[in-house]
Amino acid sequence: MIDISDIKALDAADPLRNFRQGFELPDDLVYLDGNSLGALSRLAQQRVADAIANQWGQDLVKSWNMHHWIDLPQSVGEKIAALIGAGIGQVTCCDSISVNLFKLITAGLGLQSGRRVILSTSDNFPTDIYIAQGIEKLLSSDRCELKLVEESEIINQIDSSVALLLVSHVNFRTGEILDMRKITASAHKQGVLVIWDLAHSAGALPLELDSCQVDFAVGCGYKYLNGGPGAPAFLYVANRHQEQIRQPISGWMGHSDPFAFSTRYTAAPGIHQFLSGTPPILSLVSLDAALDVFANTSMAQLRKKSLQLSGLYMDLLRQYSLLGEFTLLASEEDDRRGSQVAITHPQAYAICQVLIDRGVVMDFREPDTLRAGFAPMYNSYIDIWRAVNELQKIMKNEEHLDPRWQARNKVT
Amino acid sequence: MIDISDIKALDAADPLRNFRQGFELPDDLVYLDGNSLGALSRLAQQRVADAIANQWGQDLVKSWNMHHWIDLPQSVGEKIAALIGAGIGQVTCCDSISVNLFKLITAGLGLQSGRRVILSTSDNFPTDIYIAQGIEKLLSSDRCELKLVEESEIINQIDSSVALLLVSHVNFRTGEILDMRKITASAHKQGVLVIWDLAHSAGALPLELDSCQVDFAVGCGYKYLNGGPGAPAFLYVANRHQEQIRQPISGWMGHSDPFAFSTRYTAAPGIHQFLSGTPPILSLVSLDAALDVFANTSMAQLRKKSLQLSGLYMDLLRQYSLLGEFTLLASEEDDRRGSQVAITHPQAYAICQVLIDRGVVMDFREPDTLRAGFAPMYNSYIDIWRAVNELQKIMKNEEHLDPRWQARNKVT
Repeated sequence: MIDISDIKALDAADPLRNFRQGFELPDDLVYLDGNSLGALSRLAQQRVADAIANQWGQDLVKSWNMHHWIDLPQSVGEKIAALIGAGIGQVTCCDSISVNLFKLITAGLGLQSGRRVILSTSDNFPTDIYIAQGIEKLLSSDRCELKLVEESEIINQIDSSVALLLVSHVNFRTGEILDMRKITASAHKQGVLVIWDLAHSAGALPLELDSCQVDFAVGCGYKYLNGGPGAPAFLYVANRHQEQIRQPISGWMGHSDPFAFSTRYTAAPGIHQFLSGTPPILSLVSLDAALDVFANTSMAQLRKKSLQLSGLYMDLLRQYSLLGEFTLLASEEDDRRGSQVAITHPQAYAICQVLIDRGVVMDFREPDTLRAGFAPMYNSYIDIWRAVNELQKIMKNEEHLDPRWQARNKVT
Repeated sequence: MIDISDIKALDAADPLRNFRQGFELPDDLVYLDGNSLGALSRLAQQRVADAIANQWGQDLVKSWNMHHWIDLPQSVGEKIAALIGAGIGQVTCCDSISVNLFKLITAGLGLQSGRRVILSTSDNFPTDIYIAQGIEKLLSSDRCELKLVEESEIINQIDSSVALLLVSHVNFRTGEILDMRKITASAHKQGVLVIWDLAHSAGALPLELDSCQVDFAVGCGYKYLNGGPGAPAFLYVANRHQEQIRQPISGWMGHSDPFAFSTRYTAAPGIHQFLSGTPPILSLVSLDAALDVFANTSMAQLRKKSLQLSGLYMDLLRQYSLLGEFTLLASEEDDRRGSQVAITHPQAYAICQVLIDRGVVMDFREPDTLRAGFAPMYNSYIDIWRAVNELQKIMKNEEHLDPRWQARNKVT
């Protein structure tokens, strides 16, 4: 039996326990939704306020040089690179995952002449699938065809007709981790290039993109990286592909000399050509600051605590006999479990609403999934204790059956 | 002869004179670069601070519903619509001009089967040309060919081979206004659809998109709309095209039901399908607040003062006999002059640097253009007086010939 004194001991011994003070979280809130929107760090708050008051407000247009706004996609990209096992010059920060996937899929197809299949999983995050479908419609069918298979079947389905494999490293619903090294190697044996979506990985677990010989990747700035709502995404292109590859959203920021105002697009060298339009500086500054919080810890340390948090969550679900009513989607094997634990229940939507009402924020994913995300920088062991205790009370008293918890919001 | 007492009288009689207090400009700065980066309004500063501290910080992920983040692209779009003569449901705010042009050009080509020419001007803003070139490379040559002609030749070059006409309403270099009504009508006679780039028009002069029967438009949030550095752009699609049109960067935010997490993309109705990925909320909030400043005036009132400012600038250039040394690019006809006046000089780069050093911010455009932009919300007549006086002193003393003003910055 785990009791409150065990929980208190875990928090007292936590080497990351002081990190929460660097975040602006309400004291009484149990926030287990950092996999949807990471919390506000004091650093991000201060730096955006400074960028507004002193840079935009006082130095105005001069800030592009004076405060290095023009370099932010690259400098933020390098900070992310350091967290995902990428050497310099391969990551840039811009646009959204959707737009970046559009660039990488079209550009990747361009490297794979004679092949037209994009292989992905039917349980991939929807926008990844939708972007591939948009490209399928835009290009003629002799250039592109999307094929969706079960996640468990992905390696078996790789063959020499496949141009690109498009997979999420951590499944947004189940939290299942795919084996990046093995899948990438299997793809390469068949001449297939791989695009990894790191939305639920970057900032959540150690990654080794270079060492795994990854070709391309995209990822999210607003989840585990805590960059703020809708923070720009990032993309990775391995050095070895950078010379031949060309992406079609060839805006001025990706030009080799944007301020020459030439009438002919010439791609900038390296990763820089993947920029398109003018970047949203306030959102970039916020992400830039949030990334600096990572300098005081390591991905290994964060991962260790993340696994302890998710392990504790599952242990407590079991201790309160909740795994009869709920079905566990998450893997119990550490190396297959991302920084979240999802459980399913026919009433998951209503249960999630009551939890939020009681100050425990998780999220719901259609049709029946309740996701708890773990952010070791600001989640404590007592958060997990309180969350499962609330859940247990709700189920025991059947509070979720009250009709007022059934009404659906736009975003859930 | 215009003298300082005339200038003071103009400022005293200016119905917009109190607007400057709503902006955070340094007292001693003459800022004539609002056509590159609009100034910081106190409203934008307050609202972003609130969005960070209270929305992101306290309500976290719940803010997508509670604070209507999810609706911002649409609600900001409608505020812009009111400034550009567009009825509701036709404007949304997202991504950059570059990305939005990619969507509109590919989508527009899809409506024009049998036609493949994109006609544009060689003096169009470079990113517009680059995006068309990227699409030209992506699609096969039987689907797309970019043709660039002189701006003055544009109407003559429209014929029935043209699918899309891509033109800037106000030329970024010369400030010349093209006749939106006439060019759109000429294009329609030949079955050509028109994409207008409003980067230097929106917030600067009255526009009548609906009345001119415009098909498509894009525009910028960070120039005359004062949305902040890299603020999201907007796009306009006329109601009559919305049912048939499909854009290829079909991300989840443009799905008819994004949170159903279906594996099949179904375009949202109306303008909404033009959204792609998750929008950068902090940058959107800033633009949203900046647009509210426009509620206290009208485009007609702003335009009237803008023409007086640019007229005064040209009068003073003449009074100080500067139009021998400099060549005027701007039109002297009010209805052909945007909210800027450009002049050329072989030493324009160095002259611009000395002006900035003296507290007069204008900008330089390759190869020899010095642009002064007029933002009637925060520019006063004394700003113009001081700017031309500084310019006159610099030229008289040949200060720009000092070698230290010749070194080039990244962004100029």
